[in-house]
Amino acid sequence: MTGNARVVIVGAGFGGLECAKALRRAQVDVTVIDRENHHCFQPLLYQVATAALSPADIAWPIRHILRPQRNATVLMEEVRDVDPERKCVQTQFGEIPYDYLVIATGSTHSYFGHDDWSRFAPGLKRIEDGTRIRRSILIAFERAEVMTDEDQRRRLLTFVIVGGGATGVEMAGAIADVARQTLAADFRRIDPRSARIILIEAGPRLLPTFPAGLSDYALKTLTRVGVEVRTETLVTKCDADGVDLKDGRIDAGTVIWAAGVTASPAMRWLNAEGDRAGRVKVNSDLSLPGHPEIFVVGDTAAVTDKNGHPVPGIAPAAKQMGTYVGKLISARVAGREWNKPFKYMHLGDLATIGRRAAVVKFGPLELKGFIGWVFWSVAHIYFLIGLRNRFVVAFNWFWDYVTFQRGARLITDPPNSGGTGRDA
Amino acid sequence: MTGNARVVIVGAGFGGLECAKALRRAQVDVTVIDRENHHCFQPLLYQVATAALSPADIAWPIRHILRPQRNATVLMEEVRDVDPERKCVQTQFGEIPYDYLVIATGSTHSYFGHDDWSRFAPGLKRIEDGTRIRRSILIAFERAEVMTDEDQRRRLLTFVIVGGGATGVEMAGAIADVARQTLAADFRRIDPRSARIILIEAGPRLLPTFPAGLSDYALKTLTRVGVEVRTETLVTKCDADGVDLKDGRIDAGTVIWAAGVTASPAMRWLNAEGDRAGRVKVNSDLSLPGHPEIFVVGDTAAVTDKNGHPVPGIAPAAKQMGTYVGKLISARVAGREWNKPFKYMHLGDLATIGRRAAVVKFGPLELKGFIGWVFWSVAHIYFLIGLRNRFVVAFNWFWDYVTFQRGARLITDPPNSGGTGRDA
Repeated sequence: MTGNARVVIVGAGFGGLECAKALRRAQVDVTVIDRENHHCFQPLLYQVATAALSPADIAWPIRHILRPQRNATVLMEEVRDVDPERKCVQTQFGEIPYDYLVIATGSTHSYFGHDDWSRFAPGLKRIEDGTRIRRSILIAFERAEVMTDEDQRRRLLTFVIVGGGATGVEMAGAIADVARQTLAADFRRIDPRSARIILIEAGPRLLPTFPAGLSDYALKTLTRVGVEVRTETLVTKCDADGVDLKDGRIDAGTVIWAAGVTASPAMRWLNAEGDRAGRVKVNSDLSLPGHPEIFVVGDTAAVTDKNGHPVPGIAPAAKQMGTYVGKLISARVAGREWNKPFKYMHLGDLATIGRRAAVVKFGPLELKGFIGWVFWSVAHIYFLIGLRNRFVVAFNWFWDYVTFQRGARLITDPPNSGGTGRDA
Repeated sequence: MTGNARVVIVGAGFGGLECAKALRRAQVDVTVIDRENHHCFQPLLYQVATAALSPADIAWPIRHILRPQRNATVLMEEVRDVDPERKCVQTQFGEIPYDYLVIATGSTHSYFGHDDWSRFAPGLKRIEDGTRIRRSILIAFERAEVMTDEDQRRRLLTFVIVGGGATGVEMAGAIADVARQTLAADFRRIDPRSARIILIEAGPRLLPTFPAGLSDYALKTLTRVGVEVRTETLVTKCDADGVDLKDGRIDAGTVIWAAGVTASPAMRWLNAEGDRAGRVKVNSDLSLPGHPEIFVVGDTAAVTDKNGHPVPGIAPAAKQMGTYVGKLISARVAGREWNKPFKYMHLGDLATIGRRAAVVKFGPLELKGFIGWVFWSVAHIYFLIGLRNRFVVAFNWFWDYVTFQRGARLITDPPNSGGTGRDA
């Protein structure tokens, strides 16, 4: 309508949002499309799954974030396909034409060809995953209190986390806190502290992207709080009652998947080349080969850093790519030259290990223990969107820290769903 | 095991919880059974439905509330039936024997014989009802922003609330706040302030249990914030696209039911006599005729006050009944005399009307407007369970008051549910 170039951004995660913001002064009409109404702060999703935070504490309406940006429109629709020839995006409600397209659709869990495992071993990507896992963990203790059969109880009180990266380590530590502290005195027939928490990693050490010293520290800390860590262990099957390993079997009431991700269906939409994890191969300016008007950012893009290593699927990387593409499009519509390739700057890695401990690798800085945990807390509060969420999360952490209590111990379920099928 | 009398309480709402607490010093083993893991503070459920509070802010794990009470065990099970002859309760996991039984199962919505309307016009009783209605309200605006058809838009932006009691008045006022303030600047293609909010009441005035002056005030205040109030109007049908009235039709995207309640299935379990609303007829000591060891409290019991008026289905009434029965059982197991009948003391009625206004009738005291709203806020904070919840709710209200923002604008849905069927 305005004659401005139309920029369509699919996905309002870290990459998509930063791209939209970087376009705020450009002569363009920005349309952000997401199937959710909210941006989810994924780094804290494990705290929703372990009842420390409420979903609303780490999610914020996308249209509220972009409310001050007058050149941006937000549409809650689900993208079904892209037509690069006719330059339009297809959603369940119709077609949305673009001059520039930015794909920022993130990634989803990969079960390495065993998609049926997702029923038994949910991963942690969306708000709903968080409440689903929260439900599964809390209901395991409830059911164990009711059961009289010892084998059933033992199975219910066994929690398996598959994958020893940051998410797996954080989940294992938090479940240990829930069992050993939060719930310790609340039951009469079972002792929640007897719960088994088993963290399984296929590789030789936890936190493979961290320095080896911090991996060791994570292993020691988890072991101290009662988590059984099994490295170099492969899961060969997940079912309703537990997991099969290469060298045995674990009966478990709850299995959580933190092992692998695969890019969203962008490769198929664009009919493009991708890598093994489904990420779209892009040029050095993040554009699609043959389509200088289409860009792919964040977990959906296969990008390497200056040393040829793949750029990791973490929030800062997605944000850097989003900002880069926003600036590139701004320059192009303004008729300015642009020939800087995208350069990833790795800021660091951080992960908490339960209450009061974390490992941090930040440039030359290596932190662990309490000081690492303080650094981790401040960094996450800082990056949360919205002053209100910062206050509420800080308050909840303070409360949890002082009282050992968690504020969101809620088992909820849609009225018609009939449960997750894993209740008993 | 202990030889103590076994008291089984079914339902951990206001009545059941108070009954359990009143038994804390008695020589009994208390078992509280609830199908949920949490006690829900229903008076604030409408604030979850209108995105002002998160579910966890008004819900607290039952077993955590009763954690210090060593003679109480909490079981999360669903009661299927009661066998008064064999003195046991049947759940999905087995039988639980009792010496004393307290039924405190509350009430559910009544559609006056049209149970199929519940699909189209959800009511507000459980946490899941709150998030379901929140989803429905927020998604209506999202869909209207996407639609190009004007009739569709108008329908989506029409909200009908059936029932002009406290819940209906509070919902109507809160939806008006959401449309006129919270969302006002967040959309580009629609003006949320153009939303129609229609409150339908079958009787001659809103808030029929309040003094007529306060009803008038509620009507004026709602009208001022743009709510259309229709009294003496009967709904003859609810469907996916709106409601039929005796004298016309309203196409609406969201219909909320706040018109009637019916007691839970206790009448059937006990094979007992009940009133029209399904409430069990009880003796003056709240025991079941012919069964001095079975008691019914709260919304499930048909009780009259000293003037012969039915005791209203509100939290203070349920609490009074719960405490009464707890004391009665304590006396009986201790071998003490007990022949005081239950006496209901009406403390008052209160209802908010959107932001900064409320009506309060408290003994001889009648308050309205801002001062009523302050009274209402303080009273509700006071009655919330847990210091943490009081802090968090107070903070959220303060934040909302200052910024006009609501902290829980979250559309969530279970991954497999496929939505409510009312999305488009």
